[in-house]
Amino acid sequence: MQQRLARLQHIVNTASLDAIALVPGANLRYLSGQSFHLMERPLILFVPAAGEAAVVIPSLEVQRIQEAGFTGHILAWRDADGYLGAFDQAAAVLGLAGKRVGVEGLTMRVKEGQIIQGLGASVIDADPDLVSLRVNKLSDEIENHRRAMQISERALATLLEQIQLGMTERQIAKMLSDLQSDYGGAGNSFETIVLIGPRSAMPHGEPADTPLQQGDTLLIDFGTRYNGYISDITRTFFVGEPSAQVKAMYAAVLTANQAARQAARPGITGAELDRIATQHLMDAGFSDYIKHRTGHGIGMEVHEHPNVSAENTRPMEAGMVFTIEPGLYAEGLVGIRIEDNVTITPDGAETLTTFPRELTVLDL
Amino acid sequence: MQQRLARLQHIVNTASLDAIALVPGANLRYLSGQSFHLMERPLILFVPAAGEAAVVIPSLEVQRIQEAGFTGHILAWRDADGYLGAFDQAAAVLGLAGKRVGVEGLTMRVKEGQIIQGLGASVIDADPDLVSLRVNKLSDEIENHRRAMQISERALATLLEQIQLGMTERQIAKMLSDLQSDYGGAGNSFETIVLIGPRSAMPHGEPADTPLQQGDTLLIDFGTRYNGYISDITRTFFVGEPSAQVKAMYAAVLTANQAARQAARPGITGAELDRIATQHLMDAGFSDYIKHRTGHGIGMEVHEHPNVSAENTRPMEAGMVFTIEPGLYAEGLVGIRIEDNVTITPDGAETLTTFPRELTVLDL
Repeated sequence: MQQRLARLQHIVNTASLDAIALVPGANLRYLSGQSFHLMERPLILFVPAAGEAAVVIPSLEVQRIQEAGFTGHILAWRDADGYLGAFDQAAAVLGLAGKRVGVEGLTMRVKEGQIIQGLGASVIDADPDLVSLRVNKLSDEIENHRRAMQISERALATLLEQIQLGMTERQIAKMLSDLQSDYGGAGNSFETIVLIGPRSAMPHGEPADTPLQQGDTLLIDFGTRYNGYISDITRTFFVGEPSAQVKAMYAAVLTANQAARQAARPGITGAELDRIATQHLMDAGFSDYIKHRTGHGIGMEVHEHPNVSAENTRPMEAGMVFTIEPGLYAEGLVGIRIEDNVTITPDGAETLTTFPRELTVLDL
Repeated sequence: MQQRLARLQHIVNTASLDAIALVPGANLRYLSGQSFHLMERPLILFVPAAGEAAVVIPSLEVQRIQEAGFTGHILAWRDADGYLGAFDQAAAVLGLAGKRVGVEGLTMRVKEGQIIQGLGASVIDADPDLVSLRVNKLSDEIENHRRAMQISERALATLLEQIQLGMTERQIAKMLSDLQSDYGGAGNSFETIVLIGPRSAMPHGEPADTPLQQGDTLLIDFGTRYNGYISDITRTFFVGEPSAQVKAMYAAVLTANQAARQAARPGITGAELDRIATQHLMDAGFSDYIKHRTGHGIGMEVHEHPNVSAENTRPMEAGMVFTIEPGLYAEGLVGIRIEDNVTITPDGAETLTTFPRELTVLDL
């Protein structure tokens, strides 16, 4: 843990902060190798620009931070005493009063932010600075992504052998989860999405009791974890031949997916990749059916940097990992999405997903 | 949704706030009946003291808020445009500048808090005020808790029939999850805890590959959801006769559990219930092995009000639902916890958990 803490300390300095305060989440998981949970008992790791870090931690979690190899100040608090004394100690040890403390703006909660302000420090959203802690994955991290994707793909292949008409979205989702688990995945990376028929047009829909019938579209979006790193894949299948209009939509999505993946390389921005995919969808005449950006970064979290969207103007670098998932959604009719995971290599990009993308009619 | 919004509006007024701002979480789930997710795209529902509410929402979620029956202002934003314009519109429609906006301090993140401050409003932790939105459960909500518990208990009973020496913590946890699902539960209410041997002494440990062997302690803490409401039960079993010391610890925990449940009634505080249970543990000579409070409220969340802990001096009322889960933890040796779910009735309390609590030696 101390080596990775040193990298964080480097970020504190380059970001002109006095300290960074982390709560349970992917960053703390990355640093400690332990899964602490964000609950109502505050747990905050303070990492100053120089010197030892300090953690304010519920007493029943102390053993785990020690197991992680943390050698800084441990300020434990018990339910019976409350946490304010431990925070006062941390502030005294680190001299936080009047200082600039960077926090994870999209993870730390208002309450914890106010506790830090109560110590006399100012709270600054350091999410943009913290990106560099985990965004350039090393080869062992990429390998974990690859293994996670292999498990997901194997599960999807088995699912297609076992799926039958009449199965519901929920049943199919459960089957996929079990298969991923059987094949060595550590749970779902997010709630599996299985949407049938017109329900496929809901980009964030949840599985219900809709049964699979002849003529249906079947959209499946799922993933698993391997050593903490996730996979995230979507495929859209058809039970029976789709209409010419649906085929045209599918072809547009597939072309958009391929074009963005082929353009991926060091130096190109997420905004440019997004524009390439989106332009293909628009050129095919489906502007009205575009509902979301082209992709998002993945890692220990399902959504992290780098985004493949208009606002990301940072050039891609080797080791960045993200989804390419263009989609088209005709409300009440059909939704189509084809999602792969891609990593930037020193001289191009590697698509971690190998599952076929061609329009597939299931013969059930 | 509009009826429950009116109850929230009442809270805005009694708390002397100008508005309350909710992000995806249990409160929004309770109001809308829909599961929105807290992601990097901000979604905030603003409920003013009077008049129509307004929601700033990613465009791909608009359909779901409409399905929830929301009739207020919908300010949708697309990835390509960003969210700031939609927030400015909400601020204009509701006149938020200079106003006091209550937020969920333990759910809303620093980033969203800063967005609201950026609109010229002040951000106040309204979690204490929001408690009354969901803390007094109605009979249909209690029934959901009861059904969730029945599913968990049936799963545990089946597990005890099927469990074998050599099974690992992870395998046992998976089996329990599947059984709950088979019996009608909607997933685990939290990551199932199965801890074997000395690992049972970790109050928040996670299942690993430790196999069950003769002489082991087996601590199981798990639950499921039914119509959104959770169960949360812990039992500690023994494979082979435990030592006299462990038996004494078990007896103390059981007595503490029973005493607290028997004392539960309208008017008593969480602090008093906590003191009753804790006193029994201390009287038995195990003060050093107490690592946590006696319990926590449950509902649509695994941890909500009312806490059964020293700081909760609010009297219990009918419809409150919470855990009673005293425990003793001798590090490196053994942990024992017995957890039930309890609801306050007009003239006493009902324990929703019926699974036997007596010291049970498994004959495997």
